[in-house]
Amino acid sequence: MIIDCHGHYTTAPKSLETFRQKQIEGLKDPSLSPAKDSLRISDDELRETIEKAQLRIQRERGTDMTIFSPRAGGMAHHVGNAATSALWTGICNELIHRVCTLFPKNFTGVCQLPQSPGVRPDNCIAELERCVNEFGFIGCNLNPDPSGGYWTGPPLTDKWWYPLYEKMVELDVPAMIHVSSSCNPAFHFTGAHYINGDTTAFMQFIEADLFRDFPTLKFIIPHGGGAVPYHRGRYRGLAQDMGKPPLQQHLMNNVFFDTCVYHQAGIDLLTRVIPADNILFASEIVGAVKGIDPETGHYYDDTRRYIDAVGTISAADKKKIFEDNVYKVYPRFRRHPA
Amino acid sequence: MIIDCHGHYTTAPKSLETFRQKQIEGLKDPSLSPAKDSLRISDDELRETIEKAQLRIQRERGTDMTIFSPRAGGMAHHVGNAATSALWTGICNELIHRVCTLFPKNFTGVCQLPQSPGVRPDNCIAELERCVNEFGFIGCNLNPDPSGGYWTGPPLTDKWWYPLYEKMVELDVPAMIHVSSSCNPAFHFTGAHYINGDTTAFMQFIEADLFRDFPTLKFIIPHGGGAVPYHRGRYRGLAQDMGKPPLQQHLMNNVFFDTCVYHQAGIDLLTRVIPADNILFASEIVGAVKGIDPETGHYYDDTRRYIDAVGTISAADKKKIFEDNVYKVYPRFRRHPA
Repeated sequence: MIIDCHGHYTTAPKSLETFRQKQIEGLKDPSLSPAKDSLRISDDELRETIEKAQLRIQRERGTDMTIFSPRAGGMAHHVGNAATSALWTGICNELIHRVCTLFPKNFTGVCQLPQSPGVRPDNCIAELERCVNEFGFIGCNLNPDPSGGYWTGPPLTDKWWYPLYEKMVELDVPAMIHVSSSCNPAFHFTGAHYINGDTTAFMQFIEADLFRDFPTLKFIIPHGGGAVPYHRGRYRGLAQDMGKPPLQQHLMNNVFFDTCVYHQAGIDLLTRVIPADNILFASEIVGAVKGIDPETGHYYDDTRRYIDAVGTISAADKKKIFEDNVYKVYPRFRRHPA
Repeated sequence: MIIDCHGHYTTAPKSLETFRQKQIEGLKDPSLSPAKDSLRISDDELRETIEKAQLRIQRERGTDMTIFSPRAGGMAHHVGNAATSALWTGICNELIHRVCTLFPKNFTGVCQLPQSPGVRPDNCIAELERCVNEFGFIGCNLNPDPSGGYWTGPPLTDKWWYPLYEKMVELDVPAMIHVSSSCNPAFHFTGAHYINGDTTAFMQFIEADLFRDFPTLKFIIPHGGGAVPYHRGRYRGLAQDMGKPPLQQHLMNNVFFDTCVYHQAGIDLLTRVIPADNILFASEIVGAVKGIDPETGHYYDDTRRYIDAVGTISAADKKKIFEDNVYKVYPRFRRHPA
């Protein structure tokens, strides 16, 4: 089985975006705020958006299952306040649940969290519990910068986050560290903010001793770990200068990288320097880069091809990347009906 | 000849740091502000700090020349106001000039600029002219985020920066894009802010058409280009989705990467995906990572070894990286007395 651990519902029906626009308009004029039940999306609409896109791509590329979450750029935790975020998050997660129920063999849910800048992440616990216990979701996406590009909150290693981590450990679910859209004109969202968020999170983990406090807490750093594998020497050297244990011991029981790296040389590097035990297959469909690479004639984000083509790791290691590691990082995946 | 295009005066005499501390104390209580001429550093002190560190390392590693600038982390443009930055910048640049005068065969100067958050970069022109015309400097370091980790200023492609670019073009000097220390607790300075700054700058260049306005403007993106070579597919794909020309045509006459990547696999990737015409040798000594890599027995930042060991590019390409490209990117290097 080939499991893609990083897919977003980027193809949701337009009425979802229309609802969101009304919600944003309602921030200025509450009389315009839409009622939650004004959003009506039929099962047929959901099926159509999935069959034409994610499901078609799974079939074309020969993958079997996608760990599926709301559109990351759409989370936009910086919009409005905690109530805005809670309503929007609930709606997005319910749609994921419906997709996963319609296509149980192809999708497993991961939730967005109702984060809001300056609001303690304790406020995310109820939604995480609902998604895991009621919907059968197996993880969450955690935004390390709810401000949307101004990084005004505490690092991920601050005790600020600990109540959420305690709940994650209790529920046995990991988080993918994933920023959302950027409202800072310095940062293009998928080209700078995403990659910077990944790099930043890893360096925060190096500086602190979070996994001494939470030995079983697990994070996936997407987009191939940002800049980390390319700068592995820098990170090993910085940890050493700080008197931290070797990275393998300091972090690598807890931190995993996905394979959303869109060229062969990048995947070759990733699999050369990061142990197969720490890599999870992903393509981020339908995602950040939509085109066909004229150098290869294939879609940039068809990451399965790059992993298939790696010549330096064993078939057993590839199976870890495509499948086995998911059971380790997302223990609740075993309970999935498919 | 082997030319290292990225060295900082990280070993300056302690009295420089003492002066800076007094300057910072003077921001609260102006009566504590030190007079500029209270800082006295003898030539012998300068010689000692250089001979024991950068010059010794040049000899040990078999490199010949370092393009040398003030300590990047020390620029701290976010401290105080434009006058604070101007005084501090002048002092730092004058020390670089003295080192280059004492060791003309080994060091060529590049200046810090007196940037300050929210202040138009026009205020940097006089110092750039002084350093180039009076001191013989061949380039400058440009901080894309003078706020020190909050990214409150406009992108590098904004017309805000154009007067400085016009002067760079007139003087025929490039800029290395280099952030300084981070006052944002989310960002470790050398592990996150530096690498993010590099990645962010490259993406800003993709989004705009700066080099249509300035066809001869040149930038060096340090630290191996941040995350860019590792994510080359993502950047090519994003540019394509935006309708931009191929990156080679869009940017690569104007944007160059250094080799401050501290492991063999990283340098192998860099030289595999980035044309040798766009790579400049650098090690960032004495810099970000100080230790010896237990996997190799050599200093992490001994980047010459990695380039020597690359098996996939020609000797002519290595000569471009070690020497020839410097003449292209820093045209004033030809006029250097050595």
